Amino acid sequence: MELDHLSREDDMTEVTRRGAIAAAAATTLASMGASAPAGAAAPAAGRRAPGWYRYTVGDLEVTVVTDGARSFDLTPSYVTNAPIEEVRKALAAAYMPPNRMIHHYAPIVINTGGKLVVIDTGGGPGAYKQTKGELGQFAENLVASGIDPKSIDMVVISHFHGDHVNGLLDASNKLAFPNAEVLVPEVEWKFWMDDGEMSRASAGRMADLFKNNRRIFDALGRKVTTYGWGKEIAPGVLPVATTGHSIGHTSYVVSSGNSTIYVQSDVTNNPDLFARHPDWGGAFDQDPNAAVATRRKVYDMLVAEKLLVQGFHYPFPGLARVEKAGGGYRVIPAPWHPTL
Amino acid sequence: MELDHLSREDDMTEVTRRGAIAAAAATTLASMGASAPAGAAAPAAGRRAPGWYRYTVGDLEVTVVTDGARSFDLTPSYVTNAPIEEVRKALAAAYMPPNRMIHHYAPIVINTGGKLVVIDTGGGPGAYKQTKGELGQFAENLVASGIDPKSIDMVVISHFHGDHVNGLLDASNKLAFPNAEVLVPEVEWKFWMDDGEMSRASAGRMADLFKNNRRIFDALGRKVTTYGWGKEIAPGVLPVATTGHSIGHTSYVVSSGNSTIYVQSDVTNNPDLFARHPDWGGAFDQDPNAAVATRRKVYDMLVAEKLLVQGFHYPFPGLARVEKAGGGYRVIPAPWHPTL
Repeated sequence: MELDHLSREDDMTEVTRRGAIAAAAATTLASMGASAPAGAAAPAAGRRAPGWYRYTVGDLEVTVVTDGARSFDLTPSYVTNAPIEEVRKALAAAYMPPNRMIHHYAPIVINTGGKLVVIDTGGGPGAYKQTKGELGQFAENLVASGIDPKSIDMVVISHFHGDHVNGLLDASNKLAFPNAEVLVPEVEWKFWMDDGEMSRASAGRMADLFKNNRRIFDALGRKVTTYGWGKEIAPGVLPVATTGHSIGHTSYVVSSGNSTIYVQSDVTNNPDLFARHPDWGGAFDQDPNAAVATRRKVYDMLVAEKLLVQGFHYPFPGLARVEKAGGGYRVIPAPWHPTL
Repeated sequence: MELDHLSREDDMTEVTRRGAIAAAAATTLASMGASAPAGAAAPAAGRRAPGWYRYTVGDLEVTVVTDGARSFDLTPSYVTNAPIEEVRKALAAAYMPPNRMIHHYAPIVINTGGKLVVIDTGGGPGAYKQTKGELGQFAENLVASGIDPKSIDMVVISHFHGDHVNGLLDASNKLAFPNAEVLVPEVEWKFWMDDGEMSRASAGRMADLFKNNRRIFDALGRKVTTYGWGKEIAPGVLPVATTGHSIGHTSYVVSSGNSTIYVQSDVTNNPDLFARHPDWGGAFDQDPNAAVATRRKVYDMLVAEKLLVQGFHYPFPGLARVEKAGGGYRVIPAPWHPTL
């Protein structure tokens, strides 16, 4: 019996390639309906699983809506302070292809009873187009979950990276949630909108981020509400400072009754690397040292409190608990409940 | 920050109770459509996440379709050879309520390109009614996944327990997959259909199983095809003997190209108990000693081969890898791929 641990990755590509054919086949299958002849060669359904999952936290209802996943070649600079061989070993230990990195993305929607609150927005229509639907799925999966974007009251941004803010805009560069107030961390807002900071940004990633943030928020007429840390922004939704990954990076303690989850945002990216190896800095961390310190502090707290954590970059649906393992942490997915 | 590890369990009950109201609310939300006023109090969606997940194994397409999950009070006899205190400890270590046991259920459908093959069928309409929809979801989730029951060519049964065979029948006691051939392990068939064995069955669970199997297969006019171990029953689907849980209990090696998964059926029930503690016998094991020996053998193989395993009683979607951990095994869910 042979194992090919690249197979799922390959399959993902393969399936993407044959997407158009499969979609046609699926349509045929559906239209065959009740009169489908048994024993006919079965066309591959080719349709991906729905990308949303719903659970409750006390009286709150949380809907995790995946924006998709993408893989890319691992580069020596991806982890800032570990040799690529060590990173490859960590990937192999997690049954991943040792030369490819996979990023997962999942915004959430919290129904507080009074308000529908989106936290982060995914890569938006641009990412969808660029990746042929591997990313930027948030909008369509949100609708599939039964939530109308027009019914969203509040969009909360955790930090100003493209995979969190770009989904604020629809394909016509209008607010994708037309009736929503947009809330942003005041530290992020101050930093990224400051012309002096922008002029001092190093070329490449930082300069691109400044440019992207102007693009997004200028399209919105810079109409946002800034929020600070330590004060609820909606019933049961408390923003807390988890800086490092970005200067104003924010996580959320979401609670109702005696139930609590911790919405970590990007305290780690893929946990197979950055929870198992919390001291590794990511190329995407604005201040890798601060990001590491924050990660240790948050994860030690998650372990001590046995707290449920919702991870934007965890594999869908991204609800989990954390345990100590070796010098790092192991992320244990919470079991899926088929009845809400 | 307080953790209430019972909360998700409680929430499940709570949500089930308010199901009818929530369904009405969801309908209202949907019909509000484009004209939904922003800032209106948001009704809870109350709709559970879709219960299917699809992946490929080489050229095969596998659709996992959950039948649901249910919880029940832990009793001293649930594990045959460990004190209930030890079992409670294991549940607490898995962040489960120490006095409640949770069982998950998930049949699969394999599209071989030529055939649509269902493996196991869930608890059927009776379970659905009895549990108010917590179990017996297979039929509706199958349709949600885009698969018409009439298009199923073959239903393969792993063993003759109610949660695997009862879904063979629809609410009118007809074959739920009207165009399918029903394949059953010949050892199971011989044992459960034998009048002598039935007359010697101990009262209670064994007698009930005999009675239930007569009910199911008599309704089908005993029209089944028996299969042996070690010979493919459909392209890429190889049944293998994993006896103990039941006298003819069967697992499947499913492979295509250089990709393979191991469909374990009930080699373990909930892995938090029976993979972490492989030497524990379950009250539902026909021969607990043989079940333990099989479990060790299969799990050692899964570890050695780093093989993907699909578990009927793993939490949905139930695709995982297995590692050694302490004296037992740890089941590591495979990451969810949002693009097929």
